[in-house]
Amino acid sequence: VGKQRPKILDCTIRDGGLVNNWDFTEDFVRNVYHSLNEAGVEYMEVGYKNSPELVDTNGAGPWRFCDDDLLKQVITEKKTTKLSALVDIGRVKEEDILPKSDSVIDLIRVACYLKDIDKGIALAQVFHELGYETSINIMAVSNALEYQLVEGLEKVNNSTIDIAYIVDSFGSLYNQDIQYLIDIFKKALPNKKLGIHTHNNLQLAFSNTLLGKNNGVTFLDSSLMGMGRAAGNCPTELLVGALKNPDYNLAPVLGLLEKEMIPLREKVEWGYTIPYAITGLLNEHPRSAMALRKSDDKDKYKDFYNQFMTVERH
Amino acid sequence: VGKQRPKILDCTIRDGGLVNNWDFTEDFVRNVYHSLNEAGVEYMEVGYKNSPELVDTNGAGPWRFCDDDLLKQVITEKKTTKLSALVDIGRVKEEDILPKSDSVIDLIRVACYLKDIDKGIALAQVFHELGYETSINIMAVSNALEYQLVEGLEKVNNSTIDIAYIVDSFGSLYNQDIQYLIDIFKKALPNKKLGIHTHNNLQLAFSNTLLGKNNGVTFLDSSLMGMGRAAGNCPTELLVGALKNPDYNLAPVLGLLEKEMIPLREKVEWGYTIPYAITGLLNEHPRSAMALRKSDDKDKYKDFYNQFMTVERH
Repeated sequence: VGKQRPKILDCTIRDGGLVNNWDFTEDFVRNVYHSLNEAGVEYMEVGYKNSPELVDTNGAGPWRFCDDDLLKQVITEKKTTKLSALVDIGRVKEEDILPKSDSVIDLIRVACYLKDIDKGIALAQVFHELGYETSINIMAVSNALEYQLVEGLEKVNNSTIDIAYIVDSFGSLYNQDIQYLIDIFKKALPNKKLGIHTHNNLQLAFSNTLLGKNNGVTFLDSSLMGMGRAAGNCPTELLVGALKNPDYNLAPVLGLLEKEMIPLREKVEWGYTIPYAITGLLNEHPRSAMALRKSDDKDKYKDFYNQFMTVERH
Repeated sequence: VGKQRPKILDCTIRDGGLVNNWDFTEDFVRNVYHSLNEAGVEYMEVGYKNSPELVDTNGAGPWRFCDDDLLKQVITEKKTTKLSALVDIGRVKEEDILPKSDSVIDLIRVACYLKDIDKGIALAQVFHELGYETSINIMAVSNALEYQLVEGLEKVNNSTIDIAYIVDSFGSLYNQDIQYLIDIFKKALPNKKLGIHTHNNLQLAFSNTLLGKNNGVTFLDSSLMGMGRAAGNCPTELLVGALKNPDYNLAPVLGLLEKEMIPLREKVEWGYTIPYAITGLLNEHPRSAMALRKSDDKDKYKDFYNQFMTVERH
């Protein structure tokens, strides 16, 4: 594989869609694509490519499904920035995915839990056969036993998958945890490229992403102003500004933030708040904190924390 | 010196005072003291102890001066949490500082630039003679030449000062920079305890502080919800929640945040915003970004950034 320059994958539309139910206009997505391209960002994730028949659509905007005709209408001209889409195992019909030659998508990423790794690998290999770059994004690795993780990764190493992602689903991993996981991934996956996807519950998303970069991880996920589920992600603007890549250009990202993200930020909430810090500190899924933030008790931190501390819960 | 358990120094009133011109009520400060004490936080910085005659008071609240009678009125009963105050060289009259035995303050910290290190050491030694614990907080170390820093630190090592702080004044230091500075400080200061004071311009304040902790730095500055100048500091709630110290207790901190900090946050702004990220990325003082955030152009990121990129500036 050899040493590769790190690449940024902006997942604003996909992970940020979890915040606003994928209610981005076509113009918004078009502007994001053009600005990321000007900024030199290598990949843009345009959404989930799940099959509408297999999910509870619940009024979701089109970027939850990424219909190929829609994508071609929005990204009329492919430039340097490649496109990616994420699928969940069990939520996509293989026949809904066109051959790469008929699609504007370059990379399909498969998200699964470790217990479903065989399904995840099988699905990713179908997309590989169709001509796509592929990745597998194993969620909630901090809740798996290490021997199970290593066994799963060894299967990935023997597959046709291009990239294996370290995913900090709960935003609960410290720098030393990420270092520990990188060492495991590197050892079990000598044939693969590595990626990292972080959440900002502990204000460690950028730091953990840079740690990955400094240790040979080459696919770095981020989003504009960190827009993503709950505490959000590593901010694209910090990666573009910090990485020593002469092709990167911060000004187009800043223009995009002021034009598109500031108005959006006034309508929906994402990013570090105390309830997300609490679930991060406790290595819990943020769903309870997300529910709290939508309730009248959104700033009742002490009661929220004490709920987790009661013995009955365990 | 030997291995010491890390201690948290909450500087909300002092560094947060830079945000609201030290306009905290006595009840607010009293509540902070009681909650930090319940939380097990070792130190609380109650403000600056500059002399009113030597600063442009500019309507500043009392925590910019920390009159001893006021402190005794607010902190009527000293509990486990110790008190600290910061002084700037040239802004404090030595005769305004009582002997330790007559004061509720335990630790006096002296802030200075490296060029004034001799003055800073002399002043701190006066406070040492008066019976206080003392620290020296050298600002803007990233803008000093290394041999000058080492010479200055060697003088500190030969002084009566207890603690030397690594201060990331501009919030521009990455994890590897902090590691580099820790190595320099440790080598030049074998007789001293070390402290770290971070800013969050690059969302690295917590990460940098933990890195310090993992490398033998024992005085860890933080503030409630990160309240501090510009992008703010390492959040106290994350340190109390993350450090493995059985005496720490997160619930009182959370109660304090919901009672005191949320209402305050609605009135004044601090914390990560894009202009602070820009000055952090560029290793610039945040003052231009602070001015921008107070103007109608507060979200004009691209123009703000481009100002720094023009050749004439250099």
